[in-house]
Amino acid sequence: MAASARSSPSRPDMTKERRTMSRISILGLGAMGSALAATLIRKGHSVIVWNRTRSRAEPLAAAGAKIAASPAEAIAAAELTILCVVDYDAARSVLTQAEDVLVGRYLVNLTNGTPGDARDLGTWLDAKGATYLDGGIMAIPPMIGDTGALILYSGSTNLFERHRAVLDALAVSRHLGDDPGLAALHDLALLSGMYGLFSGFLHASALVTSGGGKAVDFLPLLLSWIEAMSGTLPDLAGKIDSGLHSRNVVSNIEMQKIALENIVRASREQGVAPDFIEPMLRLAGQRVAEGHNADDISAVVELIQRQKRT
Amino acid sequence: MAASARSSPSRPDMTKERRTMSRISILGLGAMGSALAATLIRKGHSVIVWNRTRSRAEPLAAAGAKIAASPAEAIAAAELTILCVVDYDAARSVLTQAEDVLVGRYLVNLTNGTPGDARDLGTWLDAKGATYLDGGIMAIPPMIGDTGALILYSGSTNLFERHRAVLDALAVSRHLGDDPGLAALHDLALLSGMYGLFSGFLHASALVTSGGGKAVDFLPLLLSWIEAMSGTLPDLAGKIDSGLHSRNVVSNIEMQKIALENIVRASREQGVAPDFIEPMLRLAGQRVAEGHNADDISAVVELIQRQKRT
Ligand SMILES: NC(=O)c1ccc[n+]([C@@H]2O[C@H](COP(=O)([O-])OP(=O)(O)OC[C@H]3O[C@@H](n4cnc5c(N)ncnc54)[C@H](OP(=O)(O)O)[C@@H]3O)[C@@H](O)[C@H]2O)c1
Ligand SMILES: NC(=O)c1ccc[n+]([C@@H]2O[C@H](COP(=O)([O-])OP(=O)(O)OC[C@H]3O[C@@H](n4cnc5c(N)ncnc54)[C@H](OP(=O)(O)O)[C@@H]3O)[C@@H](O)[C@H]2O)c1
Repeated sequence: MAASARSSPSRPDMTKERRTMSRISILGLGAMGSALAATLIRKGHSVIVWNRTRSRAEPLAAAGAKIAASPAEAIAAAELTILCVVDYDAARSVLTQAEDVLVGRYLVNLTNGTPGDARDLGTWLDAKGATYLDGGIMAIPPMIGDTGALILYSGSTNLFERHRAVLDALAVSRHLGDDPGLAALHDLALLSGMYGLFSGFLHASALVTSGGGKAVDFLPLLLSWIEAMSGTLPDLAGKIDSGLHSRNVVSNIEMQKIALENIVRASREQGVAPDFIEPMLRLAGQRVAEGHNADDISAVVELIQRQKRT
Repeated sequence: MAASARSSPSRPDMTKERRTMSRISILGLGAMGSALAATLIRKGHSVIVWNRTRSRAEPLAAAGAKIAASPAEAIAAAELTILCVVDYDAARSVLTQAEDVLVGRYLVNLTNGTPGDARDLGTWLDAKGATYLDGGIMAIPPMIGDTGALILYSGSTNLFERHRAVLDALAVSRHLGDDPGLAALHDLALLSGMYGLFSGFLHASALVTSGGGKAVDFLPLLLSWIEAMSGTLPDLAGKIDSGLHSRNVVSNIEMQKIALENIVRASREQGVAPDFIEPMLRLAGQRVAEGHNADDISAVVELIQRQKRT
């Protein structure tokens, strides 16, 4: 439809398509790797796939991908290779099988790991003459290819810019800097936030169901409360950055410690194990014991940060 | 201004005002009790205040409240008494001072405590001939009197309906049932959810600041991620209610356990103590060790609920 509006009707958009279409290899076809490959096929790229267990490649071959016989064959055949396996040990084992073809290659690794893992792999690939971009996928597989999915990148800016069109086909792309560890750091920070949300949700659901309620009935109330309380986070973030935890405090940590004790006591009354609440109670208690009764709850960050520990 | 639009201009709305205006005593004038009293004064009610430390009553007297010399004097002078002190020991000590005037009185207790605390106080007040409503304030003091504030109630439906206008002047009011423990149970469940959110936010902020970033710069990304991940909670809540944790699983607990291990390893690399993440890792690990690798993270609830523990 849009072709009719173009200035050169004889070759509508072949030039443009040829320029943006790439040959991409995907190594690792678990839930996530398969979603990455399927999305790139659907968006018209030429996709080569490899997986340790070959059977997982077949649905993608049926959708138009070529199956490579080895990681080396896949990497050698593509302009860009994307690796997404279970962990960095698996990633290293896959790349070691392709050691001889790495020179001059562009590699994106979307396997979840630590900043140190990413830096180590970056150093190793650098020594092999490959260009490395690390990424952290902030989405679940069904979201890949949608605007709701985000992938954080760090490492080679050259690779990021050169293959931007492919990366943008997978998710909203954000490059955080040249240090390959930055994407993993931010990825794991976001996951921490999510696991905090899940911890609170699971504890709250255990409490409500212990009283005969249903988790689904309680959830709308919880979600609107979580949303309201998210509104206090900018103030707490400012306190974390400035270290001024006792300025403009609405709910002081001494009072909050009592609320936390009440949660733990109520949990015991109801037969719910307080595992998810105990760390906050312990740390708030420590801050109060050290005489910082008038601080905000943000002050707890001082107890989990390196520079403040002895 | 609105008076000109009324049908009876000679006595604009005295009848209406007289009917909805009440004499209310507030016992306890900390941050929260003071906000409750100030809101009722501002909304035209006749307010009597008492606080153990009298000086905290003075700003409210300046705003129009009467100061009572004792809890008994305050309770005896009012149609409805609202109690909001630091904890149930304090609440009991205040009410014990007024033991002789409790018969026939209407009492709302907004002090934070456990379901058991509320039930015990309800039983005690019942024996004294008073009518009891327990409440849990889901708001911070500056929100009182706004539509964003919510107070959960349980206990006497009679009191709740009779004094609904006063309660609605403080916040959106929701009555959960006759069992006085229900408000505390839901209050503490919501607080658990909030402390989960805070735990995740504090850990994420510690990670990002350990890499030289600022918590305020990172927060918008975290908030949009938290909002996106909140979208997975209805599915998890359904799994909690049904106990069917391995149906339609997008991210299985074995894979999530690896992500949690990565968070803990990255935290150690960055010098951040993993206190807030360890419970989820430990419980996910236990579920995997018990052979439930294909479950969703919702399955962790089985390990913190009474009926599943030995
Ligand atoms: N699923 C999600 O929600 C999600 C979200 C964000 C990020 N991620 C990340 O994406 C990555 C992949 O996750 P996934 O969900 O796709 O996991 P998955 O479904 O469990 O798949 C694991 C993949 O790793 C491969 N693998 C494991 N060990 C290997 C080895 N030693 N050598 C070669 N290949 C090996 C598996 O191959 P076989 O088929 O031969 O076993 C499979 O392709 C993980 O780092 C995960 O943290 C996942
Ligand atoms: N602030 C919040 O964000 C918030 C939010 C929701 C719920 N709440 C709940 O509201 C309640 C009050 O909190 P708050 O913020 O007002 O606390 P606060 O500012 O610390 O005030 C505590 C109040 O309790 C009184 N008190 C303490 N011990 C007493 C005793 N033995 N006898 C008589 N009075 C005593 C204090 O009197 P003195 O002035 O004489 O010390 C003061 O009026 C708590 O249960 C809290 O959990 C607070």
